[in-house]
Amino acid sequence: MSKIAVINPNMSAGFTDKIRTQAQRTVYPHNQVVALNPDFGPDSIEGYYDEAFASVGLLSVIRKLDPTGIDGYVVACFDDTGVDAARCLTQAPVMGLCEGAIRFAQALAGRYAIVTPMFVSVRPLEHLVRKYGADRDCVVRAAGVRTLDFEGENATRAYNALYGAAQKSLRDDGAEAIVLGCAGMTDVAEHLSADLGVPVIDGVQAAIKMVEGLAALQLTTSKHSTYGTPPAKSYHGMFEGFAPASI
Amino acid sequence: MSKIAVINPNMSAGFTDKIRTQAQRTVYPHNQVVALNPDFGPDSIEGYYDEAFASVGLLSVIRKLDPTGIDGYVVACFDDTGVDAARCLTQAPVMGLCEGAIRFAQALAGRYAIVTPMFVSVRPLEHLVRKYGADRDCVVRAAGVRTLDFEGENATRAYNALYGAAQKSLRDDGAEAIVLGCAGMTDVAEHLSADLGVPVIDGVQAAIKMVEGLAALQLTTSKHSTYGTPPAKSYHGMFEGFAPASI
Amino acid sequence: MSKIAVINPNMSAGFTDKIRTQAQRTVYPHNQVVALNPDFGPDSIEGYYDEAFASVGLLSVIRKLDPTGIDGYVVACFDDTGVDAARCLTQAPVMGLCEGAIRFAQALAGRYAIVTPMFVSVRPLEHLVRKYGADRDCVVRAAGVRTLDFEGENATRAYNALYGAAQKSLRDDGAEAIVLGCAGMTDVAEHLSADLGVPVIDGVQAAIKMVEGLAALQLTTSKHSTYGTPPAKSYHGMFEGFAPASI
Amino acid sequence: MSKIAVINPNMSAGFTDKIRTQAQRTVYPHNQVVALNPDFGPDSIEGYYDEAFASVGLLSVIRKLDPTGIDGYVVACFDDTGVDAARCLTQAPVMGLCEGAIRFAQALAGRYAIVTPMFVSVRPLEHLVRKYGADRDCVVRAAGVRTLDFEGENATRAYNALYGAAQKSLRDDGAEAIVLGCAGMTDVAEHLSADLGVPVIDGVQAAIKMVEGLAALQLTTSKHSTYGTPPAKSYHGMFEGFAPASI
Amino acid sequence: MSKIAVINPNMSAGFTDKIRTQAQRTVYPHNQVVALNPDFGPDSIEGYYDEAFASVGLLSVIRKLDPTGIDGYVVACFDDTGVDAARCLTQAPVMGLCEGAIRFAQALAGRYAIVTPMFVSVRPLEHLVRKYGADRDCVVRAAGVRTLDFEGENATRAYNALYGAAQKSLRDDGAEAIVLGCAGMTDVAEHLSADLGVPVIDGVQAAIKMVEGLAALQLTTSKHSTYGTPPAKSYHGMFEGFAPASI
Amino acid sequence: MSKIAVINPNMSAGFTDKIRTQAQRTVYPHNQVVALNPDFGPDSIEGYYDEAFASVGLLSVIRKLDPTGIDGYVVACFDDTGVDAARCLTQAPVMGLCEGAIRFAQALAGRYAIVTPMFVSVRPLEHLVRKYGADRDCVVRAAGVRTLDFEGENATRAYNALYGAAQKSLRDDGAEAIVLGCAGMTDVAEHLSADLGVPVIDGVQAAIKMVEGLAALQLTTSKHSTYGTPPAKSYHGMFEGFAPASI
Repeated sequence: MSKIAVINPNMSAGFTDKIRTQAQRTVYPHNQVVALNPDFGPDSIEGYYDEAFASVGLLSVIRKLDPTGIDGYVVACFDDTGVDAARCLTQAPVMGLCEGAIRFAQALAGRYAIVTPMFVSVRPLEHLVRKYGADRDCVVRAAGVRTLDFEGENATRAYNALYGAAQKSLRDDGAEAIVLGCAGMTDVAEHLSADLGVPVIDGVQAAIKMVEGLAALQLTTSKHSTYGTPPAKSYHGMFEGFAPASI
Repeated sequence: MSKIAVINPNMSAGFTDKIRTQAQRTVYPHNQVVALNPDFGPDSIEGYYDEAFASVGLLSVIRKLDPTGIDGYVVACFDDTGVDAARCLTQAPVMGLCEGAIRFAQALAGRYAIVTPMFVSVRPLEHLVRKYGADRDCVVRAAGVRTLDFEGENATRAYNALYGAAQKSLRDDGAEAIVLGCAGMTDVAEHLSADLGVPVIDGVQAAIKMVEGLAALQLTTSKHSTYGTPPAKSYHGMFEGFAPASI
Repeated sequence: MSKIAVINPNMSAGFTDKIRTQAQRTVYPHNQVVALNPDFGPDSIEGYYDEAFASVGLLSVIRKLDPTGIDGYVVACFDDTGVDAARCLTQAPVMGLCEGAIRFAQALAGRYAIVTPMFVSVRPLEHLVRKYGADRDCVVRAAGVRTLDFEGENATRAYNALYGAAQKSLRDDGAEAIVLGCAGMTDVAEHLSADLGVPVIDGVQAAIKMVEGLAALQLTTSKHSTYGTPPAKSYHGMFEGFAPASI
Repeated sequence: MSKIAVINPNMSAGFTDKIRTQAQRTVYPHNQVVALNPDFGPDSIEGYYDEAFASVGLLSVIRKLDPTGIDGYVVACFDDTGVDAARCLTQAPVMGLCEGAIRFAQALAGRYAIVTPMFVSVRPLEHLVRKYGADRDCVVRAAGVRTLDFEGENATRAYNALYGAAQKSLRDDGAEAIVLGCAGMTDVAEHLSADLGVPVIDGVQAAIKMVEGLAALQLTTSKHSTYGTPPAKSYHGMFEGFAPASI
Repeated sequence: MSKIAVINPNMSAGFTDKIRTQAQRTVYPHNQVVALNPDFGPDSIEGYYDEAFASVGLLSVIRKLDPTGIDGYVVACFDDTGVDAARCLTQAPVMGLCEGAIRFAQALAGRYAIVTPMFVSVRPLEHLVRKYGADRDCVVRAAGVRTLDFEGENATRAYNALYGAAQKSLRDDGAEAIVLGCAGMTDVAEHLSADLGVPVIDGVQAAIKMVEGLAALQLTTSKHSTYGTPPAKSYHGMFEGFAPASI
Repeated sequence: MSKIAVINPNMSAGFTDKIRTQAQRTVYPHNQVVALNPDFGPDSIEGYYDEAFASVGLLSVIRKLDPTGIDGYVVACFDDTGVDAARCLTQAPVMGLCEGAIRFAQALAGRYAIVTPMFVSVRPLEHLVRKYGADRDCVVRAAGVRTLDFEGENATRAYNALYGAAQKSLRDDGAEAIVLGCAGMTDVAEHLSADLGVPVIDGVQAAIKMVEGLAALQLTTSKHSTYGTPPAKSYHGMFEGFAPASI
C-alpha cells in the first residue's frame, strides 16, 4: 500500500476538489490518496510570477505531510511549479503533470501536441518540454480560452475550442496524440479521445501512475547532488519557520 | 485487472525464468503476468545482427498473444529490440527496458548512468539514449563482464565489476543514480542500491510499472501515423505466415 | 575494379529490375554491379513492421554474396532497412539510400527537402534524418501517392503530385534542393530537376557513388565496437542457418 | 543617467556590502546604483529549496523599488534565482549573474569554464547553461570550498582551491577563459586573471554592464508573452500583499 | 575613457556615415568613437562571396588602428563578417552586430525574430544564429526589400515592408521582440518599436554597448587557443604586407 | 570523363606537390585532375586569420579555372577554408577535406576521432564538426606536432605522435576509426590503418571521391538561396578584379 499526496499549488478549493475526484478514480485500489492545497498563495497560476509564490505554498504542504509518511507526491499543476525544490525537500518521488504526461505520450506516439488553454502559457511550456528532452517530438498549442471556462456555462464553448485546437494540431503539426495542458481539463480526456480518435493523455492521471509505480518499487529521489537535502541555515522574517534545519 | 505480457526476445529459457520471477514479484496484485520467449531465434542478443532476428521472434509472440487480450507488453531486452515494430502490430502499449528505466531515472536524479555488462553495447545504447532525448543527462558505462557471468560461479565477480563501474560513474561522471543496463541483472537492484547509497533502477521493473500505468488508464498506442497498422500485403517464403493482412 | 551489390530488401522483382537498370547506368565503367532481392519477405516496405522482416531478408542475401567477394553494398530502400545489422555482418562498406542522398544534398544546398510518396513515412524518415545529424537543414514532405503509382497508368498523376510537393517545399520550407524519398522514383530525378530548376538527388545513384568511393579507397567498416562481428552463438528454429558462428 | 538596482536575494548583509562595493566600483560614473537584500528569507542560497524562498524575497524588493524609477535590475546570485519571475514584474531589464557572465565569455573565448565553490552547484548550473544555449562551449567545475570560505581566515586556502580548479580546467577541458561561479568571489577576478593569464569574468560586473547597456538604449522587457504582466488575481494568507493586482 | 572603433567592412561611404552618426549618438559621453571602412573591397556585402573579400578589408583596418590604442571593435555588418579572424588579430574585444543584438534580445524576450532585408540572407543568418546557440528561440525572416531601399525615395515602402514582416512574425512565429537584421536599418529602431509595441533591437547600438561594457571591465580576448595570435609566417603577392609576423 | 581541380589554398608548393601526387593516385582512371595553389597568400593556414587571406586566394584560382570547364573542386585544407564562398562562385560541386572525410567516417564507424597536428586547431575543428551535424559522434584530438614535422627528418617522430594520439582516442574516447585532420598527412593513411587495425580516412582522398561521385551524376550546387550567385556590384582597390559582375 502506498500513500500518494496530490498537491494543487494554488488556492482554488474548487480546483482541488476536481483534482481529488480524479485522483480517487485514478489510484489503484490498494493505494490511498490525499489531495490538498496550501493555506496561502494565489488563486491560480498564470506565468512565472504566480509560480514563485505557489512554489512556497507547495513546499509548506510537503513539510506538513512528509512526517505522516507519504510515498509519493504529485504536483497538480501543468507547469510543474516547484518540482525541483520539492525533490530537494523529500525523499519520496515527486512528479509534475507535464513531466508525467510527456513520459506517457512518448511511449504512445511519434509526435504529440500539448494543448493548453491560454496563449500566454505556450512559451513557458515549450521551455519545460525542452528541459525534459522532448522538444523534437512535442509541439505546444493553445485553445484560446481560460482555465475557468471549463467550469459552468462556458464549458461547452471551452471544450469546442480545445477540440478545435487539437484537431488542427493533428492535421497541421502531424500530432498523433494529445496531451491536456492544464490540470483543469482533467475530466475531458476520455470524451476528447473518443471525439478525436487518438489517445488523449491527462497529466493528473499520468503523474499519479508514474508516482504509484515509483513508490511500488520503493524508488526514491537521489540525494547525491542535484536534489540533495538543503544544508541547514537560518531563515528570517516570514520564512523563519521554513529553515531547512527544521525539515 | 490488466494482463501484462513480458516477452524475452531471445531463446534463453533460463533468462525467461529469471524475468518471469521478477515480473511476478513486480506486478500489482490485481494484475496478471505472462512471461515467455519466441520459438526460434538467437540464444542471446549482442548487437544489431542478433537484434534483427530477435525482432521477428518478438513479433511472432505478440501475434499469438494479442488475440488472447493483452493489455500491455514489456520487451524484456535492454536494447529495446523491435519495440517500434511491435507498436505497429498491437494497440496495447509496448515498453522496452531502456525506455522504461530512463523515464524513471529522469524523475529521480539530475544525472544518471546506465551500466551495461559489455563494452560492445555502449555505443548502441548511447544511440538509444539519444533517441529518447536523454543524452544530456545520461552516460553509458560498461562493467566489462558478460551477461551470463551474473549466473552461477562467476556471480560474485560480476557483481563486483558492476559495483566498481557504478561507483566510478558516481565519482567521475557525476551520476546520481544507476540504471541496470541488462535484463539479466534484474535481481541485483536492491542489493546494489544498498551498497552504493543511491537509487538503482531495474528496467524490467520500471517497464512493467510504466505499462501497468498505461493499461490502467486504458491508454493505447496511436494508430495515426508513426505506429499505424501495417497495410495489407503479401509476405513470401518462410515469412508467409507473418503477412500483415493476417494480423 | 570493384564489385558492388545493390540489394532491394523487398520481394518485388519489378522494383529490383528498375533498380538494376538504374544501377547499371550509374556505376563507373570499370566497376561491376549485381542487383537482387531476398527469397522471402514482404512485397514492399511500408513502416517498422515490414522493416523487421525485410532486415532478415537483406542479411540472408549478404550472407550468400559475401563469400563471392563484394566490395560494397547498397541497401536499396530509402528507410535504410537493416543497414546497422548489415554493417555488423560484412566488412565491406554498406550504405542506405537515405544516408547516401543526405550526404550529397548536404554538399549542394543549405536546406533541402526529402519528398516521399506516403504521409505515413514522414515521421520514420524524420527519425532517420535526426540519426544522421541532418535534422536542422532537412525537412521531410509527402506527395500523397503510393510508390506503385509511379508505374503504369498513374505515372503522370504521381509525377505531378511529386512535382507539386517539391515545388511547395522550395517555396514554403526554403528548400534549395530535393531528395527523392523512395527507391521507386529513381528514374525521375533528371526530369524533375529540369522542371524545378534545382538539383534533385536520387538515393540509388548517390548511395552507389558513396560505396564506389569507399571501395576504391579500400575503406572498410570498423569492427572495433558498434559494428563488431556478432559473437558466435546458437540460433534456433527457422533461423538456425543464420547463426553468426557460420558467417 | 540610469539608476541600477543590484539585489542580493539572500539575507547576508555582509554579502550585500561586498556586492555594493563592487557595484559602486563598476557602474559608469554617470549612473547611480543601489544594492540591497530582502527583509526575509534564507541567509544563503544553496540549491533549489533555498531558491524558492529567495525568489519571493527578490520580488518583494523589486515591488518596493520599481515605483522609485529603476532603469535596470541585477539579481546578484549566480544561479539567476527568480529572474524569470522578476521579468514578469517590471518593465526594466533584469539580468542574473550567470546569464551576464556567459554573454561576455562567449565573446572572448571559444571555450570557457564556470568555476563554482561547491560540487552540489554543478548540476543546477549546467541546467542553467543549457537554458542559455551555451552548453556546447561551457563546462562547469567546482573548487570544493564553501562560499563563506572566501571571507576571513580561510580566504587564501579558498583562493588556492579556486586557482587549482581553474588551472585544471584550462589544461583538461580546453577552457580559454574562466567565469567566477558565485557572487561571493566578485573581488578576486583581477587577481585570478593575472595569475592564470586568461580573462576572468565576474558575473556581478558583467551583469551590471549588460543592464547599463540595455538601460542606456532604453530597451525594456517585452510584455508580449513569456514575460507578460501577471493577470490580476487574489493572493491569500501571508502572500496577500503580493497580489499582481496591486503591482 | 574607452576608444571604440566601429568598422563598416564594405566600401559604402554613405553607409559608414550613417553608422558613424548612430555610433556617436550611442556611445557613453565619456567614451570616444571612430567609424571607418577599408580602402578596398566590395560596395556591399551580400552573401559568402562578398564576405570573403570584406574580411580582408576589415583586418586591414584593424591592423592600422590597433597601434593607436583601441579598446574595443564593432564589426558593423549583421553577418558578423570576419569577426573570428579579427579576434585573432587584436586583444581588444570584437563584437559583430548579430552577436550583440542576440545577446540583448535573449534578455528581453522568450522568443524573437531577426528581420533582414533580403530573402537570400535568411539561411546564412540562421547558421550564424545556430553558431551563437540561439536557434531554439530565434527565427529569421526577410522583408523582401534591398538594403539600399532604406535610403531615398523608397524609404517609406521599405519601412512598410519591414513593419509588415515584423508584424507577421509577432503573430505567426510567436516573436515577442524584433532584431533589425541589417546595419542599414540602424535609424528605424525607435520608430518601429513605437509602431509595433514591442522592443526593437538595433545591432549597431547593441554591439557598441557590449563592447563598451567589455572595455570598461578591461576584459580582453583570450589568446589561449581559439583566438590565439597567428604564428609568424610568410605572406606573398598582394597580401605580403599582411603577414602575421608584422602585426 | 570529369575534370577535377584540387586547390591547396596556401602558397606552399611542396604541399601542393604532395597533394597532387595523392590526387593523381586517387582519381578514377577515366577522370583528370589538376592540383594548384594561388599566386598570393600565406605559406600555411593556422587559424582564422590565415584563413581569411587564403579564402581570397582560393577564389582567385576558381575564377581562373572555372571557364576551362571544371566538373568539381576539392579545397585541400582540413579546415574547409572558403568552401561556402566557393560554392557561391561556381556551379560545380565543391568539397572540403573535413566535410568529405566526415561523410565517409560516418558510414564506417559509430564513433570516430579527427587527429590534427596542433592543439590550436582543436576548437576551430570542433566548430566545423558541429556545423556538419557530426558533433555527437566525432571527437577532435591533437598529436602535438606541427604539420611540417611530417616532412624530412622529423617525420618518424611526427608519425609516432600521431599514432599515440590515435591509439589513445581509440582507448579513451571509444573512437572506432581515425580521420587524418590535415592535408599534410595524406600519405600515412594506409600505414596508420595497418598499425592501428581500424579504418583511417584521409580527407584528400575522401573529398576527391565525393566530388567525383557528384560530378559523375552531374549534380551541381543549388543556386536557389544559400549558395546563390553573388549579385553584381563594384569592387575597389586591390580587389577590383574580383567583382562578381566579372565572374
